[in-house]
Amino acid sequence: MVNVAILGFGTVGSGVAEVLDVNAEQVAAGAGKDIRLKYIVDIRDFPDSPYQKYMVKDFAVVEGDPDVQIVVETIGGAKIAYEFTKRALLAGKSVVTSNKELVATHGYELLQIAQEKGVSYLFEASVGGGIPIIMPISQCLAANKIDEIYGILNGTTNYILTEMFKNGLPFETALKQAQQNGYAEANPAADVEGHDACRKISILSSLCFGHHVYPDQVPTEGITAVTGDDVELAGRKGYKIKLLGRALTGGDGRVYAYVGPHLVPESNLIAGVEGVMNGIVVRGNAIGSVMFYGAGAGKLPTASAVVSDVIDAAKHIGTGSRMPWGAGGAEYVGDANTLETAWYVRAKGGAAAPQGAEQLGGVNGSEAWLMPKMSRSAAQALTEGMDVQSMFRVLE
Amino acid sequence: MVNVAILGFGTVGSGVAEVLDVNAEQVAAGAGKDIRLKYIVDIRDFPDSPYQKYMVKDFAVVEGDPDVQIVVETIGGAKIAYEFTKRALLAGKSVVTSNKELVATHGYELLQIAQEKGVSYLFEASVGGGIPIIMPISQCLAANKIDEIYGILNGTTNYILTEMFKNGLPFETALKQAQQNGYAEANPAADVEGHDACRKISILSSLCFGHHVYPDQVPTEGITAVTGDDVELAGRKGYKIKLLGRALTGGDGRVYAYVGPHLVPESNLIAGVEGVMNGIVVRGNAIGSVMFYGAGAGKLPTASAVVSDVIDAAKHIGTGSRMPWGAGGAEYVGDANTLETAWYVRAKGGAAAPQGAEQLGGVNGSEAWLMPKMSRSAAQALTEGMDVQSMFRVLE
Repeated sequence: MVNVAILGFGTVGSGVAEVLDVNAEQVAAGAGKDIRLKYIVDIRDFPDSPYQKYMVKDFAVVEGDPDVQIVVETIGGAKIAYEFTKRALLAGKSVVTSNKELVATHGYELLQIAQEKGVSYLFEASVGGGIPIIMPISQCLAANKIDEIYGILNGTTNYILTEMFKNGLPFETALKQAQQNGYAEANPAADVEGHDACRKISILSSLCFGHHVYPDQVPTEGITAVTGDDVELAGRKGYKIKLLGRALTGGDGRVYAYVGPHLVPESNLIAGVEGVMNGIVVRGNAIGSVMFYGAGAGKLPTASAVVSDVIDAAKHIGTGSRMPWGAGGAEYVGDANTLETAWYVRAKGGAAAPQGAEQLGGVNGSEAWLMPKMSRSAAQALTEGMDVQSMFRVLE
Repeated sequence: MVNVAILGFGTVGSGVAEVLDVNAEQVAAGAGKDIRLKYIVDIRDFPDSPYQKYMVKDFAVVEGDPDVQIVVETIGGAKIAYEFTKRALLAGKSVVTSNKELVATHGYELLQIAQEKGVSYLFEASVGGGIPIIMPISQCLAANKIDEIYGILNGTTNYILTEMFKNGLPFETALKQAQQNGYAEANPAADVEGHDACRKISILSSLCFGHHVYPDQVPTEGITAVTGDDVELAGRKGYKIKLLGRALTGGDGRVYAYVGPHLVPESNLIAGVEGVMNGIVVRGNAIGSVMFYGAGAGKLPTASAVVSDVIDAAKHIGTGSRMPWGAGGAEYVGDANTLETAWYVRAKGGAAAPQGAEQLGGVNGSEAWLMPKMSRSAAQALTEGMDVQSMFRVLE
């Protein structure tokens, strides 16, 4: 028998309670032992919740109960969640989380504490919602030297871009529609400015390349600069525009990670990842490319990932589930702006074509080109003097 | 330090030796200990191999060496591989394999022996080549009740169907091209008749639904009945033809598994799985649908999966890596022919449309229709008297 406490009874926390309840048989079979919800910690009252009997307001109750072996942290943010996670680990409890901000900013420190205490700190649900990605990378691809990882890591922006492409909506209308459907927050900045994707590619980079990559080491552009004109011009040549987080190793052994809009050829399977779905591609030296696809958010998919980690933690009580990930530092991370890729550029009409560029055509008084592989600064130099409206990388 | 012996120095076996060698650093980091190749067992001579020093001809050397903790079986078939696997497990060694025939026909028995001896029997590479699928299902989706699994499980037939679709080749020409490119055997029956996909869906069904499903419980059709006319008529309505292995639970709790050609709408991501690639979709009650995509065969991708299992076995020496999968039996498996799906039917011209069917159009003197959801026998009854040329299921 393993006892679990959930911190934070929001969307994910209540989903975890529900999955532990409804799928108790599968969970017990997977863990090889019964797993029982003992506490839900939240300062709010939930008088009508069927889980009322588990509710406590004070984390100290969980911290001081030696029968609680696993703590599920679904509070979010990097303040109170950080404090409670540290205290839980130091009290010898494994912690499972969906909190990408906390993992991206304090993952190394928390993993270190977990290792010292012989417990697990697991975060499958922090990237890709329910999609199995953290364990497949750390275990199934362990025989590989990973060269690159990239993907559609944010469902909200992918929904907006999909609506712009399929239904010709302008960005603002697509965003409003996403908000009406509950896919975007009232303040959509974390999604549309790329911060959410930035945290996720930080976590994936750290996992794939072995040293903590921090969000402030990842140059990030969102999708607010993507217009209907860009979507249309790219579409004419068989490209979709997708917001990708991407990280790869350079010849110098450093990691180059960034987030930004990309033109993706329709022949790439990831171009078919539509709406709120996520898709992540990993390239290893033995396996070649593999892709993982599924719902990147949502109550039950995310809870599914959290509970799979609960099962893993339950199986490894006494030893902890090992996750290799070393300290970060400026020396491990290169400047992503020096990465050479092909570029898409759109400028107000009448400009001469950039040298070596292929014309994509014009719309609404602007014209676009595809420029061959070069760094960002080279692309900027080549388009100097043009009235540039948009400039995005092109995925090969 | 963990010592490994490889049985069978063919494509996969030599790939395993190469990955253990080239990626030794990643492998040791993943396992938390050094993993050393000690023997390669093959009755053939390989005087020019860089791995010459590991070669022995007699399996008894491995069996009798207590320092060998992990045996990699890449012999293939279910005769000598079966005998050696059993002997290795009984000698207290973990066994890792890519041998789908052996797992599909004797998996339950071998898993039982492994459990009794406290060792692992692992077979990530038996399905989907290098794609992580066995561990993600057994661990990452453990919080789910799985409702359905289906996928493109055979790269050879997918290559042939892709060439028929993209380049309008007839089946025979596409097959010849696959043989010339090394994607198909001189005797292509195991691929084109669907036997390979049948073994793989047997393994996946057993894993997803908890009881061994044997290949002879899985009605299997290959792609030899798929013609260029079918590919063209389906394509006109936005469908691709794909060979799918599929298994789902019925309302009666039984498993319904089968292999056959399907019309897949282009809006389904799996329609974009082209050439020799594989794609597998799993549907769970919490996670919704997830897809796994990658190279379904090939020396290094398959070796990557084998070596990830070697790492897993090395981490669990002394306990064994648990895999839940019970005994099979007729009572667990329903008749897949009773499953209701939409149908595609093509008949020689001039026939009246089957009741309720939607006309797809005609080509080369035959006409095709889409029929609504019904069982195979209902579909056959409805087309009685027609000169039926092809009849395939349609994926929703």
